[in-house]
Amino acid sequence: MIIVLKPDHKESDLHRIVRRLEDLGLGAHISKGEHRTIIGAIGDERVLREVPMESFPGVESVLPILKPYKLVSREFKEENTIVQVNGHQIGGDEIQVIAGPCAVESREVLEEIAGELTAAGVHFLRGGAFKPRTSPYSFQGWGEKGLKLLAGVRERTGMMIVTELMDPRDTVLLCKYADIIQIGTRNMANFRLLTEVGNIDKPVILKRGMSATIKEFLMSAEYIAAQGNEKVILCERGIRTFETETRNTLDISAVPLLKNLTHLPVIVDPSHAVGRADLVPAMARASVAAGADGLLVEVHVRPEEALSDGPQSLRPEAFAVMMEECRRVAVAIGRTM
Amino acid sequence: MIIVLKPDHKESDLHRIVRRLEDLGLGAHISKGEHRTIIGAIGDERVLREVPMESFPGVESVLPILKPYKLVSREFKEENTIVQVNGHQIGGDEIQVIAGPCAVESREVLEEIAGELTAAGVHFLRGGAFKPRTSPYSFQGWGEKGLKLLAGVRERTGMMIVTELMDPRDTVLLCKYADIIQIGTRNMANFRLLTEVGNIDKPVILKRGMSATIKEFLMSAEYIAAQGNEKVILCERGIRTFETETRNTLDISAVPLLKNLTHLPVIVDPSHAVGRADLVPAMARASVAAGADGLLVEVHVRPEEALSDGPQSLRPEAFAVMMEECRRVAVAIGRTM
Amino acid sequence: MIIVLKPDHKESDLHRIVRRLEDLGLGAHISKGEHRTIIGAIGDERVLREVPMESFPGVESVLPILKPYKLVSREFKEENTIVQVNGHQIGGDEIQVIAGPCAVESREVLEEIAGELTAAGVHFLRGGAFKPRTSPYSFQGWGEKGLKLLAGVRERTGMMIVTELMDPRDTVLLCKYADIIQIGTRNMANFRLLTEVGNIDKPVILKRGMSATIKEFLMSAEYIAAQGNEKVILCERGIRTFETETRNTLDISAVPLLKNLTHLPVIVDPSHAVGRADLVPAMARASVAAGADGLLVEVHVRPEEALSDGPQSLRPEAFAVMMEECRRVAVAIGRTM
Amino acid sequence: MIIVLKPDHKESDLHRIVRRLEDLGLGAHISKGEHRTIIGAIGDERVLREVPMESFPGVESVLPILKPYKLVSREFKEENTIVQVNGHQIGGDEIQVIAGPCAVESREVLEEIAGELTAAGVHFLRGGAFKPRTSPYSFQGWGEKGLKLLAGVRERTGMMIVTELMDPRDTVLLCKYADIIQIGTRNMANFRLLTEVGNIDKPVILKRGMSATIKEFLMSAEYIAAQGNEKVILCERGIRTFETETRNTLDISAVPLLKNLTHLPVIVDPSHAVGRADLVPAMARASVAAGADGLLVEVHVRPEEALSDGPQSLRPEAFAVMMEECRRVAVAIGRTM
Repeated sequence: MIIVLKPDHKESDLHRIVRRLEDLGLGAHISKGEHRTIIGAIGDERVLREVPMESFPGVESVLPILKPYKLVSREFKEENTIVQVNGHQIGGDEIQVIAGPCAVESREVLEEIAGELTAAGVHFLRGGAFKPRTSPYSFQGWGEKGLKLLAGVRERTGMMIVTELMDPRDTVLLCKYADIIQIGTRNMANFRLLTEVGNIDKPVILKRGMSATIKEFLMSAEYIAAQGNEKVILCERGIRTFETETRNTLDISAVPLLKNLTHLPVIVDPSHAVGRADLVPAMARASVAAGADGLLVEVHVRPEEALSDGPQSLRPEAFAVMMEECRRVAVAIGRTM
Repeated sequence: MIIVLKPDHKESDLHRIVRRLEDLGLGAHISKGEHRTIIGAIGDERVLREVPMESFPGVESVLPILKPYKLVSREFKEENTIVQVNGHQIGGDEIQVIAGPCAVESREVLEEIAGELTAAGVHFLRGGAFKPRTSPYSFQGWGEKGLKLLAGVRERTGMMIVTELMDPRDTVLLCKYADIIQIGTRNMANFRLLTEVGNIDKPVILKRGMSATIKEFLMSAEYIAAQGNEKVILCERGIRTFETETRNTLDISAVPLLKNLTHLPVIVDPSHAVGRADLVPAMARASVAAGADGLLVEVHVRPEEALSDGPQSLRPEAFAVMMEECRRVAVAIGRTM
Repeated sequence: MIIVLKPDHKESDLHRIVRRLEDLGLGAHISKGEHRTIIGAIGDERVLREVPMESFPGVESVLPILKPYKLVSREFKEENTIVQVNGHQIGGDEIQVIAGPCAVESREVLEEIAGELTAAGVHFLRGGAFKPRTSPYSFQGWGEKGLKLLAGVRERTGMMIVTELMDPRDTVLLCKYADIIQIGTRNMANFRLLTEVGNIDKPVILKRGMSATIKEFLMSAEYIAAQGNEKVILCERGIRTFETETRNTLDISAVPLLKNLTHLPVIVDPSHAVGRADLVPAMARASVAAGADGLLVEVHVRPEEALSDGPQSLRPEAFAVMMEECRRVAVAIGRTM
Repeated sequence: MIIVLKPDHKESDLHRIVRRLEDLGLGAHISKGEHRTIIGAIGDERVLREVPMESFPGVESVLPILKPYKLVSREFKEENTIVQVNGHQIGGDEIQVIAGPCAVESREVLEEIAGELTAAGVHFLRGGAFKPRTSPYSFQGWGEKGLKLLAGVRERTGMMIVTELMDPRDTVLLCKYADIIQIGTRNMANFRLLTEVGNIDKPVILKRGMSATIKEFLMSAEYIAAQGNEKVILCERGIRTFETETRNTLDISAVPLLKNLTHLPVIVDPSHAVGRADLVPAMARASVAAGADGLLVEVHVRPEEALSDGPQSLRPEAFAVMMEECRRVAVAIGRTM
């Protein structure tokens, strides 16, 4: 950590800071420049994070040198983490597709969708039993009844189930039915929920918060890993910007950036990012080309009847075309799908 | 709700939509213009929110006419809601100040701060017992021990206690100690937590999410009100923008805008908005001038020792000056403080 | 255009608006719903754009139905515009690459770079002679001397020259040397400059403003087209968001969205979008996969000596690998490069 | 400037950087920490701005210590700059109001507005003769005819004229008629225009770009000052964010922040920031309370007939009330208006 002093700092300000660093077991490297005096803290600057150095008299600014996350960083573990789910891998050479409706609606619709997905070669079924809805008057999901419908599909098709956890009180219940637990964008900084899934033995898909920086995103992953669960799959799903033609703006550069900063798998949800079915296939292809380890796509047999997120759901025919296009792009960059 | 059809829609698309509207008990008003045909849905468009009209064949776009919130809207209830807390009012002529440290640290520090605040005429003490921290390695708050320290201050000084709820499992515990429950910015869209505080009989300060639109902010307030708790106090605390000199950007226009759209009280937290103590007093004055019903300010006797948010905490002397300045501005616009 | 009246509007407000519409030659279609009365303006709503309907007494809001741009819209012209430049096409099946240094520095360096690009199969050389620099103390470009160096390369290699126009007073000069004129991101809303290039007979690359919506971007293209120059090539180059790990956020969804809204060619500049050479190849591949008609990439033989934008410039070896990868992705989606 | 090396850098990388610094006349202060080696450049880091240190092998990141602007910084000149305009001061104790219509429309309307403003005690009349409009089909201003109308008002009333320059070719013309030249938000980074007004002897109001950081805003002011014109008045006018209820988001914290970083006067334009007349008075009061040196407000006698920006123009009666309220707030904080 670099501490920059104000041009008019007092000598006693400098001494006080040096003393504080020494108390914390750090060395202080002082460098008096033409315009500023700076102090470099030598040692593990993480002990300094809890100390508000900016509040010390005479301090102009504080510049961290190290990244605030550790367990999830590429520096800590160089090789890619590959998450194993019932014989399938997320984070390996094969790009995985997780697809399904936004919300579980009825047994019939769910089975119809699952049939289409299986035909298209998809192994992972997504569907919400508990839905975070902006309006208290909107459909909130079927709860356990929805989970049971998902489990029924798993039994009949062998598909693995991905579903969202919204409340720490539902953890045990969800773990009974799901193969992968999803933490939604609105809960990326729900630290209690992160701690909760850090203590279970299931893979977790962590969606990036709508206005979370890459650093904050990785800090949330660190919360889970710090509890002992390292099976974290990061999911870029669009960030909030000024643009209104799309629901959010897909930050495609997050894919290579995250692959550079962390060893965790990175997948992309193009459906929530753009919020319009017609743009999803192009975004899916772009995600694969950028190096994503997987896709999370909303598919519905009759979007106009969907109880949630109809406008962004692909119909099965469009989805099948998208799969074929993405496969060709995957091959072009040396992967499979 | 207005449904705009594509220039090349089929007649059958139009009929299908009209039939769907009629099934929902709505009338359909068709208007064929030179460039577009539009359908106006007559009746309560709220029944339409669950129907993904954009997914119907032939539809170009859908324009809502009514606001999605109801109970919290000024249209629903014209006069201001005034929240009563032990004989003090939030939302009336008097501007209220809620101040204190970010986190409860120790009995000594808390009492010292409370003494300074009481001297400055503050009736509400804020302090976190459970802290949402970006890093899993940061101080997470003292939990119930912190709540007890806050209760001790209440007993000795008569100050009312404001503290944050992060987990639905802590609701009963917090209600034992707090006079006002705070929902933090990261939990504004934690709908389970909102439902939870909708069912208690305590005032709730709802902080705007870092990237929440005004509409989403009011929808979250609607979640609480829909459960029966109408003692909701809205708090603008800065939004996330591209600017990095301040921690967030205080959206001061949210104050008159919210006062226009809703009957709920609106307060401002300048400390988290700017993240730098030196800018807080100017932002507090601006908030009062813009019509805020209250302020939420971080104050610490020794910011350089604070376990959380030191850089944005005012020292008591600076806080006392700020109080005096704000009082003069309050009087200038015909209010008291 | 739909005009929504306030619930408490007066009958005379309604009449006044209807009269105003009729004065403009528009019909008024009145629809009285349960909660709101709305007026639909029948006819070409573009005549209404200059009338501040929101300022009329009794008006709650105004919703446009038609898009504000015309000549550049897909609705106006269905087939793709293909821009011809000396026998090469931009906007056709072949994806074009425009590459080179940020600024023209010296004859030696420019020729070295041009040699590498030609070897990699690039036909278009970019290089700035006039540079918009954030600091008045930074290198501002060599001006006409730089243009002459570019012309020299064209003569020797046959490469076509792309260079930026910053000032309407330089138009004639630039047209003497350049094959394609570039309007930079900071000048996307410099309407005088747009009008200027609308009156020349050269293709124009129009870069999206850093915080321009898609609508504003297309309105700027409309400015050029309205003067008679329809050889406009749109360039997505990243938008400003809260994320700081990358210089800007590449809005990859702008590619399919623009292809849907306009008939103009769309290219992508991944270099300025991310500002870091290591992320450029992944973004280039994603752009091709998303349907871009071309790429604009910064390449420098020795980035550490570049007078501008070194950190985002690819070295020739990395560029050659990128070209090869992009070619494979192009083929995978049925195009050539 | 601090240069942080990668953990796996080579010794030769370090030497190469040190040599480069020495070539530039800088000292190199090397500090080997537990996790990273850092190099501090001793001397004036401004010579380093042109060198892309990030591109040197072995470099992880580069952290500037000094601010990139100089002449406009508070560090360079401690006392406030007070701009004198015909006996009136901007930047002194008195808060100045600049008001008028968005565009000059006709002699009658302009005189009517000027009469109302004079009655309210306003000395500065704003009005556009050249208008930057998003649409090429919108009213673009009357040009010189408009300037003459403004000059007519000045002659009759003594009001000073503020009008916008959009094109360097109009500089001489505008200087003939205007007392203060305005550079609009879309031209904040039009460096040629900045250089142009840096060479004239008139005060310049520089409006913040819609997505300009404070640093970039000050760099644009530096452009003007670097040419010799130090009569620069900064104007905060709202930044682009995700919020759509207001046209832009007024960054009120920019006021105290700028007053801290620069000696230049800072004014606020609440009209363009919010885009809705009903919110303007609250924003004007907040601006005064936050420490603004002036206000720029749109006023029109009949907004529903305005040729530009009607919805955000205050009617004279509302404006008079706003003036009175702002005056009381000004007095409350020890200033006059």
